[in-house]
Amino acid sequence: MASRTTVLAGGIGAARFLEGLVRVVAADTVTVIGNTGDDLELHGLTVCPDLDTVTYTLAGLADPARGWGQANESFHTLDALRRFSKETWFQLGDRDLATHLFRTSLLRRGFPLSEVTRRVSRSLGVESTILPMSDHPVRTWLETDSGRLDFQTYFVKNGAKPVVRAVEFVGADQAAPASGVLEAIAQADAVIVAPSNPIISVGPIFAVPGIREALRKTAAPVLAVSPIVGGRAVKGPAAEMMTSLGYDASALAVASLYKDFLNVFVLDEADRESSAAVEELGMRAVVCPTLMTGMPQKEALAHTVMEALVS
Amino acid sequence: MASRTTVLAGGIGAARFLEGLVRVVAADTVTVIGNTGDDLELHGLTVCPDLDTVTYTLAGLADPARGWGQANESFHTLDALRRFSKETWFQLGDRDLATHLFRTSLLRRGFPLSEVTRRVSRSLGVESTILPMSDHPVRTWLETDSGRLDFQTYFVKNGAKPVVRAVEFVGADQAAPASGVLEAIAQADAVIVAPSNPIISVGPIFAVPGIREALRKTAAPVLAVSPIVGGRAVKGPAAEMMTSLGYDASALAVASLYKDFLNVFVLDEADRESSAAVEELGMRAVVCPTLMTGMPQKEALAHTVMEALVS
Repeated sequence: MASRTTVLAGGIGAARFLEGLVRVVAADTVTVIGNTGDDLELHGLTVCPDLDTVTYTLAGLADPARGWGQANESFHTLDALRRFSKETWFQLGDRDLATHLFRTSLLRRGFPLSEVTRRVSRSLGVESTILPMSDHPVRTWLETDSGRLDFQTYFVKNGAKPVVRAVEFVGADQAAPASGVLEAIAQADAVIVAPSNPIISVGPIFAVPGIREALRKTAAPVLAVSPIVGGRAVKGPAAEMMTSLGYDASALAVASLYKDFLNVFVLDEADRESSAAVEELGMRAVVCPTLMTGMPQKEALAHTVMEALVS
Repeated sequence: MASRTTVLAGGIGAARFLEGLVRVVAADTVTVIGNTGDDLELHGLTVCPDLDTVTYTLAGLADPARGWGQANESFHTLDALRRFSKETWFQLGDRDLATHLFRTSLLRRGFPLSEVTRRVSRSLGVESTILPMSDHPVRTWLETDSGRLDFQTYFVKNGAKPVVRAVEFVGADQAAPASGVLEAIAQADAVIVAPSNPIISVGPIFAVPGIREALRKTAAPVLAVSPIVGGRAVKGPAAEMMTSLGYDASALAVASLYKDFLNVFVLDEADRESSAAVEELGMRAVVCPTLMTGMPQKEALAHTVMEALVS
């Protein structure tokens, strides 16, 4: 029987990791639990940027350079929306819009987000299972030196520049894991936390009651890949955010945030000197190249990860 | 004081007439009362094809040849929607979608369609006032030899080919004229029924209680331009529909349908022999070229109409 791999995923870092993973294990044995804290309502549409980044990437539709949206995308609707609205700072592509229209239409008809996400991903030919962390809305809000901002206002409209003082996952305490999420963790043969921002990409997933506990309890080995390399985030504001929230911006600090459930931590060669300290946290440290600059690097990282999980 | 002109309008025929009219009278003295019986819900969006045809035409955005939608339109979202849905027979352009997103978003926030239509038209630079016939949904359904069909299924999906046996305006008996509609008829200096299908373009407007009565009562002269020329509709299925519903497909039959409120009927030179019969209905007949093949013809028709209304 093919072993089952469950991946907790944020946006682009996770998507790149998954691109390699589904070349190393069968795509249909992979279940992704995605962050929905970044979701937003725009022009009446429910937009799920992280779920879509993962979906488009696994469907082979993603823009390879940009890290969001679809390749060969156009923005005619958005251009026309500028006649009507000033709220056009979020880049909604014409092809991307079809996803949001389909999703919003199904949500309004009463389908839970997990079922909607299943239909979206299947329609686009994705063989892996993509689950939202919850069917209930959870929204990431940030206390910053520019005021209290919802995630996309902070991230897109303000270019992730405000200094983050606190993070809140509104609705999380009322949320339940989406159908299939706890089972995917409990019944997996391996669980992976993708190289995503631990605060605002993985953080919302853990804010849903029951998910972190399921990671602690699962019989499967749990591995994380560090999103911090040499004190910097590969992409995005993770390092600055960790610093302003009182953590070190380091691979070791990420391992420390996950130490209650983690069995294996994969850190980059640039952070080799931290591996002893990581192991002192009670987990195995695996040092390898983690920068996913191309498909060979993505596949190599996935190979290393899968080997570490069975050894 | 500039005189005020109110125009009852369907889709493309009305839009072409209005294009000429606003070159003959000041655009901001014109109020359009538009048909919403053709409206539909698509992918969760409220689409108002006749209102939009009028709006895009008066905004100078309309596709000159096609009779619907915007010029230089693309269909990337619709193409992408085909991955998700089989209901992609209605041509939704990328630029057009912005209008539907804006409109639907405002409707969901509780704004009446008349206010939404005002914002749409103002945002696109339209100086005339465009009013929907009602803020309440009225939907045109047709009994045909292919079954009971909503208007767009009959018109677009089935190419207006089914034989129409009966017409129903669902919701009309519960609908009220939109704010401003009765006033625009009562306080106008001239009222014009545009050259639109009397059954399914003007018919829904008259199905809203109070509108036809307001036309009978207004002190303003009421004029209609025949949409039927030489026994044929200039565009669309009006002639076939009139025949299958038991009317003659003739200009005279249109005048007869409007005889309770009409003072002047404008018919094409091709129908000159009907002018005596039209006048026997108790109205003045004006014969002139009515085919709006280009802007000079549109302007000439508008001139003739405005002269007939003051003489």
